[in-house]
Amino acid sequence: MSEPLFRDPEASVADRVRDLLSRMTLTEKVGQVNQRMYGWDAYERTPSGHRLTDAFRAEVAAYDGMGALYGLQRADPWSGVTAETGIGAADGARVSDAVQRHVVENTRLGVPVLLVEEMPHGIQALDGTVLPVNLAVGATWNPELYEEAAALAAAQLRSRGGHVALVSALDLVRDPRWGRAEECFGEDPYLAARFTEALVRGVQGPAGERIGPDRAAVVLKHFAGQGATVGGRNSAATELGARELHEIHLVAALAGVRAGAAGLMAAYNEFDGVPCAANRHLLTGILREQWGFGGLVMADGLAVDRLVRMAGDPVAAGALALRAGTDLSLWDDCYPRLAEAVGRGLVEESTLDTAVGRVLALKFRLGLFEHPYAGARGADPARMEELSERLARESVTLLEHDGVTLPLAGRRVGTVAVIGPNADSVPQQLGDYTAPQRPGTGGSVLAGIRAAAPDGTVVSYARGCGLIGGDRPDLPEAVALASAADVAVLVLGGSSARESDTRFDANGAAVVASGNPVEMTCGEGVDLAELGLPEGQSALLEAVTATGTPVVVVLVQGRPHALPDLTDKAAAVLSAWYPGPWGGRAVADVLFGAAGPQGRLPVSVPRSAAQLPVFYNGKDHGYRGYVDQPATPRHPFGHGLSYTTVAYGTPRLSLPSVAVDRFDGAAPTSCTVGVVNTGGRPVRETVQLYVRRVLGGTSWPRVRELRGFVRVELAPGESTEVTFPVDAPALASFTQAGEWAVEPGEFAIETGPSSQRTRAARLTVTA
Amino acid sequence: MSEPLFRDPEASVADRVRDLLSRMTLTEKVGQVNQRMYGWDAYERTPSGHRLTDAFRAEVAAYDGMGALYGLQRADPWSGVTAETGIGAADGARVSDAVQRHVVENTRLGVPVLLVEEMPHGIQALDGTVLPVNLAVGATWNPELYEEAAALAAAQLRSRGGHVALVSALDLVRDPRWGRAEECFGEDPYLAARFTEALVRGVQGPAGERIGPDRAAVVLKHFAGQGATVGGRNSAATELGARELHEIHLVAALAGVRAGAAGLMAAYNEFDGVPCAANRHLLTGILREQWGFGGLVMADGLAVDRLVRMAGDPVAAGALALRAGTDLSLWDDCYPRLAEAVGRGLVEESTLDTAVGRVLALKFRLGLFEHPYAGARGADPARMEELSERLARESVTLLEHDGVTLPLAGRRVGTVAVIGPNADSVPQQLGDYTAPQRPGTGGSVLAGIRAAAPDGTVVSYARGCGLIGGDRPDLPEAVALASAADVAVLVLGGSSARESDTRFDANGAAVVASGNPVEMTCGEGVDLAELGLPEGQSALLEAVTATGTPVVVVLVQGRPHALPDLTDKAAAVLSAWYPGPWGGRAVADVLFGAAGPQGRLPVSVPRSAAQLPVFYNGKDHGYRGYVDQPATPRHPFGHGLSYTTVAYGTPRLSLPSVAVDRFDGAAPTSCTVGVVNTGGRPVRETVQLYVRRVLGGTSWPRVRELRGFVRVELAPGESTEVTFPVDAPALASFTQAGEWAVEPGEFAIETGPSSQRTRAARLTVTA
Repeated sequence: MSEPLFRDPEASVADRVRDLLSRMTLTEKVGQVNQRMYGWDAYERTPSGHRLTDAFRAEVAAYDGMGALYGLQRADPWSGVTAETGIGAADGARVSDAVQRHVVENTRLGVPVLLVEEMPHGIQALDGTVLPVNLAVGATWNPELYEEAAALAAAQLRSRGGHVALVSALDLVRDPRWGRAEECFGEDPYLAARFTEALVRGVQGPAGERIGPDRAAVVLKHFAGQGATVGGRNSAATELGARELHEIHLVAALAGVRAGAAGLMAAYNEFDGVPCAANRHLLTGILREQWGFGGLVMADGLAVDRLVRMAGDPVAAGALALRAGTDLSLWDDCYPRLAEAVGRGLVEESTLDTAVGRVLALKFRLGLFEHPYAGARGADPARMEELSERLARESVTLLEHDGVTLPLAGRRVGTVAVIGPNADSVPQQLGDYTAPQRPGTGGSVLAGIRAAAPDGTVVSYARGCGLIGGDRPDLPEAVALASAADVAVLVLGGSSARESDTRFDANGAAVVASGNPVEMTCGEGVDLAELGLPEGQSALLEAVTATGTPVVVVLVQGRPHALPDLTDKAAAVLSAWYPGPWGGRAVADVLFGAAGPQGRLPVSVPRSAAQLPVFYNGKDHGYRGYVDQPATPRHPFGHGLSYTTVAYGTPRLSLPSVAVDRFDGAAPTSCTVGVVNTGGRPVRETVQLYVRRVLGGTSWPRVRELRGFVRVELAPGESTEVTFPVDAPALASFTQAGEWAVEPGEFAIETGPSSQRTRAARLTVTA
Repeated sequence: MSEPLFRDPEASVADRVRDLLSRMTLTEKVGQVNQRMYGWDAYERTPSGHRLTDAFRAEVAAYDGMGALYGLQRADPWSGVTAETGIGAADGARVSDAVQRHVVENTRLGVPVLLVEEMPHGIQALDGTVLPVNLAVGATWNPELYEEAAALAAAQLRSRGGHVALVSALDLVRDPRWGRAEECFGEDPYLAARFTEALVRGVQGPAGERIGPDRAAVVLKHFAGQGATVGGRNSAATELGARELHEIHLVAALAGVRAGAAGLMAAYNEFDGVPCAANRHLLTGILREQWGFGGLVMADGLAVDRLVRMAGDPVAAGALALRAGTDLSLWDDCYPRLAEAVGRGLVEESTLDTAVGRVLALKFRLGLFEHPYAGARGADPARMEELSERLARESVTLLEHDGVTLPLAGRRVGTVAVIGPNADSVPQQLGDYTAPQRPGTGGSVLAGIRAAAPDGTVVSYARGCGLIGGDRPDLPEAVALASAADVAVLVLGGSSARESDTRFDANGAAVVASGNPVEMTCGEGVDLAELGLPEGQSALLEAVTATGTPVVVVLVQGRPHALPDLTDKAAAVLSAWYPGPWGGRAVADVLFGAAGPQGRLPVSVPRSAAQLPVFYNGKDHGYRGYVDQPATPRHPFGHGLSYTTVAYGTPRLSLPSVAVDRFDGAAPTSCTVGVVNTGGRPVRETVQLYVRRVLGGTSWPRVRELRGFVRVELAPGESTEVTFPVDAPALASFTQAGEWAVEPGEFAIETGPSSQRTRAARLTVTA
């Protein structure tokens, strides 16, 4: 008897899927869309290693197979998995292989299981190398660097037996009150799209059907519009028109799909009354029919269970999600009951077949039928640590500077007072979705400063106040240290560090309602109303700046905080975001001038929560501001100072007038701008291209839209020219007819160092 | 030669329109959709009266007719019309008749002009009787009373020669930062719909083709979604899905259309990229094709000019608006050029004919061809003043009370200190869109208290602080008066009073950007970011409550302000809204117990701007709140205390389970609740009915939705039962199929005294 077609590695994925499907029972099919079990319930630690649980064996047996297992290697306070009970780098491959072997060898068809892990900024597993959070990555404006890091993270995942990486990429910070702002690449669709492409390329490797043995499949989170929930409230309602949806919230997803992303995760939020997991317009109409996406749609955790409220019962809820286009469940009790749904006539078995086929196709693409077990060598941890630190270093964003205080190395600095609740805490540098770190991993900002300070420099330290609340018993000590120092580095901001006593929602989001104070101000489930610093930190800032000692404020944060106007109070303000374990060194390198500040704001910094929204690319209605406050941000999108000065010329177009039908391929015109380093230090400058629609079009234009950026290195006095193609994607908007198109009219083609410091050339697009 | 058909009053309006249209030149047609001229430019004051200007004669001559003339009798700082230069009650009919006579007698066809006036809360003309603003009217929950007042306002308008009243009714306070919040009936679509129906009935009289001689045509403002602009920013972008649009923002408009409203005004805001005046989906698809509206759509002021940004030039902009379904211009330079648009082929002449026909139809409906001149007797001013005061009295809303301090008459109150920047200013009680008042009209809260206080009571007064800013030179005096008094009445809040030095936008909105401080915190163009009281008022509140004297806070305001928690600080907090000229008496009546507080919140009162939105009827996602602040309001929609206590029973349904197909006419079930006055004083209680969808439906349900209210009077100890029909409108939602329908499932049918104090009966709607 010959091998069945689905076992033939030479056959096409489509043929193998078709063949395998034709052999499967209804129960086996349901098993393939099942991802109910938490991975940490699949094994137990034993004195000598790990063993599979009866619960896992029963789950496999119930469906004679398993579609996917989530989070086998996840470790964090919510899962309850610790360094003592979890799976480290040394055990990852072995435990994964044990799981896989059980599935392959104890099921009729031997279909391998997909091992799915969180990889928001490195894998969320013991010994997983932690990268800066996405908001920090966005601040680098360096997708190439991120692509390298993503590739190493994928190799790390694969070497431990994992196959599928869940990565936030598609959400945008449209309301910084949202606790998951840190997981976004920023507020801008163009920037997020470039990083999403880099992510897909990095994790999955060269485009193609086959995903290589040191690469993984990526599931992009979340589809769609989750960054626009009402009030910045997690998992709530999103209200958008078609143009706002397509022009802002779907851009990164479309870029990811075009780059070949294996999967998308349907978001928690509802959309005009329809939760994403039940949203056929989104998951099928747009994603598959308009975009031609052939990959997998995974539900978010327990999201299908929430549909019971609409559908009436779990069986109907599963059918609703399946009909909409959700292929694979996550933790819910609905998809395991899809056989009943077919039996009750709530969904066609052919619809289930389509979903199963997509799960199977990914297993074929990953080569799991030929190579079900971990084999990849894995990334060199030192190389990955180096990339993590480089990302951190390039993300440090200088928001304000008196022009003289930094870098510290250029000044006579005998004593540095390092102060603040974020000055000496590695956990507070890491962000949400992080596994417990081995002792000694990374270093704090204080440690970084101690290491980077020139010999003979005295570095003193006081915490000054708590991260939250108003308590500040050691504020006097902090003030005394600051007074006695030549410069004070005040490290403030937020924290997403989960603690063992953090309470969690059923889906792992933190439960941090008002009146239940924990030392968290950010992360999933941790939304803020007011965006100012907490009372204690504000008081510390006030007191330390009042000493007269030059103060450098460093913000370690997962969202932009609304600071008061610090002109004439602070000598410099930097955002270090959540820079990861080695972020302390990165920050110190910038402070002492070993590196220049290269970060550019991926998100507008508000003056207050009361003036929201402040994103730069809203509709252009010439709004004059509130009576009590401007509507403009404290710092604009794209902003970031250097230790030198850079002058921009006026941009020039190669052709100032172009017929609209010429925008059908290669850019018919281009925009060139001269840039010169007018200061005394070298610089890596991020030259930005924006487009404004001035006249014409079928929809109201936005203030401006990022359409390109180039990073150039300039020695002191050096000048260069940067040329941007001006093509259809640069000028297109989502028309009344519901498609992307360039419409005739007048455009301002703008270049500059931020969204608020641009000069323009005028382009006419004729009919 | 016989009279043409259009002159035959016995012929149908449709026939008359058709006949008249067939006789008109293109130029004459363009003239009929022209409302370019400001009415105050049509006349000049002379020593002996008024005379028509050459500009007016030229405008009529240019098109051999005039569609409409806006604001002939408007007086306010923006128009520059004062008591000295404007048209008073004594002159209104004569000047209107002169205008009309010129048009009728100096044009080929003698088509009368429509005289259009602002009537947001009484006509905005000298001697026009001012009513409380709509937000106050909404707080009365008494549409019948408002209908009476609206009828008198219409009679007043008509007696002065006006024909068409522009009235805000359709906007909702979804974001209280918006300066036009005062023009809304509240945040709730059901409440706004009931007041909109009352408005249409009151202004237009009994439903029917003919609008009587003491009634007027009403144009409902604004269509649509203006209360949901991003950031509460005036005239900006609105982002809504279809369900949010239909279930929240179109409800009042649909009610108004069904009640027979003569016209709607297209709003300034854009909608998913399309300004309302250019929004064919809204103005034609929904309004005319779905709803069957046959009336007039008027542009907002200069709104068509703004379309030049999209259309490219004024001629194309006019064509764009006309094609979308805008019939009549307002101030713009585009509609006067529609003949060019027809000539350039940008719009069909038949489309123009349709618009012209709607203008003409309204003139026929008003009887202007038979009776072009003012003739109605007008309302008795004393009766209208009485209704204005009654509305004010019924709007006073008691938000917090220690249970003992009010009414003052029941206590031994020898000295009352009246304090605050809103205590002694009639202009600050009036709201936006108000004409200058004759000296002596109405009275302040201070005057009301002086009049209402029992003989022998000493009433002292200090302003305490400015309305805006931090200056408070007379705060010590205020504190001294409060300390010496038995009770302090602290009158705080906002102001929409425009001053002669107010700067205005081209469309009459105030220009009040940050850094351009004027004594205004509310009104068109005056949006606020922070919703707390200004610094001076906050300091005054803090200082006066610190005296230990019982403090009654009265808020005179056009939006809900976010006050701190005043429990244990203030003895009582009342919102008087902008109560109009006689509001001082109304407030005093409530303070001294001549009337009980009857107002119920038509809008949720936020804790801060940082927690927005706080409307009660958002989607039900079980949100737990921000980490630093609850997401719930300070005071919920529907809330309002009395001077007695009222107990509610558990509601009962006449049928707890009903088949869905029975919701096709009369209510198949009803909900009854017992209510008893358990206190010692009589009460007028507003019993509220809410519906929650608990299970089922094709869209995500809201927290709850108002679906009925009944006001009952109860003597001490008296009880009654209130029965609400539960019919299709009560249970319907806007389905995925894009229609209103009752969907099978489980519903909670709730009754109670506010949206946060309800008890429920369970209703099953079976398939």
